[in-house]
Formats: sequence, structure tokens, C-alpha cells
Amino acid sequence: MIGKYTEALLMENQETFLVPADNVATVLYSHPLEHALLVLSKVGYAKIPVLDSEDHLVGLISLANIVDKMMGLTGFDMNQIEGLTVADVMEVNVPTIQNKDDLEDILHLLVQGSFLPVVNEDNVFEGIITRKEILKAVNHLVHELEKRYTVSTKGIIKEKLIS
Amino acid sequence: MIGKYTEALLMENQETFLVPADNVATVLYSHPLEHALLVLSKVGYAKIPVLDSEDHLVGLISLANIVDKMMGLTGFDMNQIEGLTVADVMEVNVPTIQNKDDLEDILHLLVQGSFLPVVNEDNVFEGIITRKEILKAVNHLVHELEKRYTVSTKGIIKEKLIS
Repeated sequence: MIGKYTEALLMENQETFLVPADNVATVLYSHPLEHALLVLSKVGYAKIPVLDSEDHLVGLISLANIVDKMMGLTGFDMNQIEGLTVADVMEVNVPTIQNKDDLEDILHLLVQGSFLPVVNEDNVFEGIITRKEILKAVNHLVHELEKRYTVSTKGIIKEKLIS
Repeated sequence: MIGKYTEALLMENQETFLVPADNVATVLYSHPLEHALLVLSKVGYAKIPVLDSEDHLVGLISLANIVDKMMGLTGFDMNQIEGLTVADVMEVNVPTIQNKDDLEDILHLLVQGSFLPVVNEDNVFEGIITRKEILKAVNHLVHELEKRYTVSTKGIIKEKLIS
């Protein structure tokens, strides 16, 4: 469990945690792989969410996923990915989160992935929570905590209060 | 300034902060771009350090840097990068850190980049500090702090101690 003062300080930046869906580059699972390559090379993210036509999250696709597929017998070759779609190389069964207030889960899941897709109860994509935004909140936490609060070894404070 | 209790708890995981140079995939600035593409597609990192032949850090190269260069007039084309080396597309003037104990700097610089190259005073590459490892330490911090210490609003504790 995260302590209440610690959590409150982290959550002071909460409104910036979610990068809303409208601001996140995504591709459709039915898109040609070359289109995904174009999007990924432009957006500056190494990996982006894959949606279906009704905005459900169906996977993630990375530049590495695509480049890997371009490898032929004699080196990289664009012909290797001709005719392939995003669905052919995307990663599926990716961790997601529904409750964007569950700091405990967010912090754990972000150890594994550099961002965490947020979905609603119908798996409709709502946005992402990134390590970058969480690290901003962590900077706030570590700089503010002992400015605002007195932190003391549990035994010591007790003794002082009793004596 | 980071408070002393906060810093001490974060630093309990310090020995895992640095991924040593031997465990980090790198390329030479003189390598053909196609070689860097191969390394990047295999290692699972979107961006890796670029060294010279004496292990000095000279830049970073990402899959996006290379794929971007593959874009020709009529789409992606491997011929576009023929004859190019890593030096032709790498990012230079990247932030580095010399003192891997400077938590304040580490936490700030990791907001901008997903990892931070560590170099010695001669700019020889020593390894990287990743957001992933720092987030493990943050998980430790937020779960332990209020278990081990009493956190109290500054005014309140003072009052109690005086009365």
C-alpha cells in the first residue's frame, strides 16, 4: 500500500497523467504495414496503440516489430512487408488499465512498459499514461515531501510525544 | 533539494541503477546504417548509444532516425540508406551524467529521455540509467516510506511537542 501523504503528493499532478486519445498517434489493425512504418517514423514514439474501427484497443505496434519483419535472406528488404497489415505483426494481450486513479497498479505496470494504455469498461481506448508524466510527478513528490511534512523514525516521535 | 529520508529510500536500490556498458547494445559511429538497423531491431531498445573506437560516447541512434532516412520520393526504400553510416543520422549533444549518485540530476534528466548515458571524466561510456530501474526504486520508496516513518504536517507535530 502507498502511504496517504505520499499518494496525495503524487496525485497533485494527476490531471497531466493521462495523454488523451485525441493526442495519441494510433493505427488501425487493418492498415498496411508501410503506413504504420510512416506513422511511427514521424511521431517520435517507438511504439503506438493499435485500434479497430470502433476505437477498441487491440494491440501495440513498434518500429522494431516492423523492421524485424523486413529482414529477408539477404538483408532488409521492403518487399518482405508488402501485403502485410498491422494485425500481422502487432503485439496482443498487452496490459491495460481501466481506473486511471489506481496509482498502485500504474506504478507497477510502468516498470514493464514505457506507457500504459487506458481503456473504458468496453475496452474503448481513452489514452495513455507514460513513464515521462509519472516521472514528473515523482520529481514533485521527492522535492516537496520533506518540505511540507516532518518525517521521523516511528519510535523516536512516539518517545518524544510521550515524554 | 530532495529530502534525506526520501533520498535514502530511493538509493537503497542504487546498485541496480546503472546498466553497465558490457550489458548495453551499442554501435560505432563508423558502422553502416544497415548494421545499426539490424542491432536495433534485435535488442528491443528503440535507441542505443553510439561510440567511437575508444569507447567515447559520441551520440545516440534510434530506429526512427534510420527509418526516417529510408523515406524516398515514392515510399520507403532501402537504397536510400546505402553508403550511409551511423554518424550521418545519429543525434549528437545528448545529455549525459558523470556522477551516478546525483539523484537530483538523474530524476530531472530522465523526464526528457528514456535512458541517461553515464560517462567518466574523459567521456568514456560506462553504462546507462533507465527510467525502468528508477521506477523500480520509486515503487520501493512509495511503498516503504510511511511504513518506516511517521509523516506529519509540520505545524501539527510542533504543537504536540510544545504542549
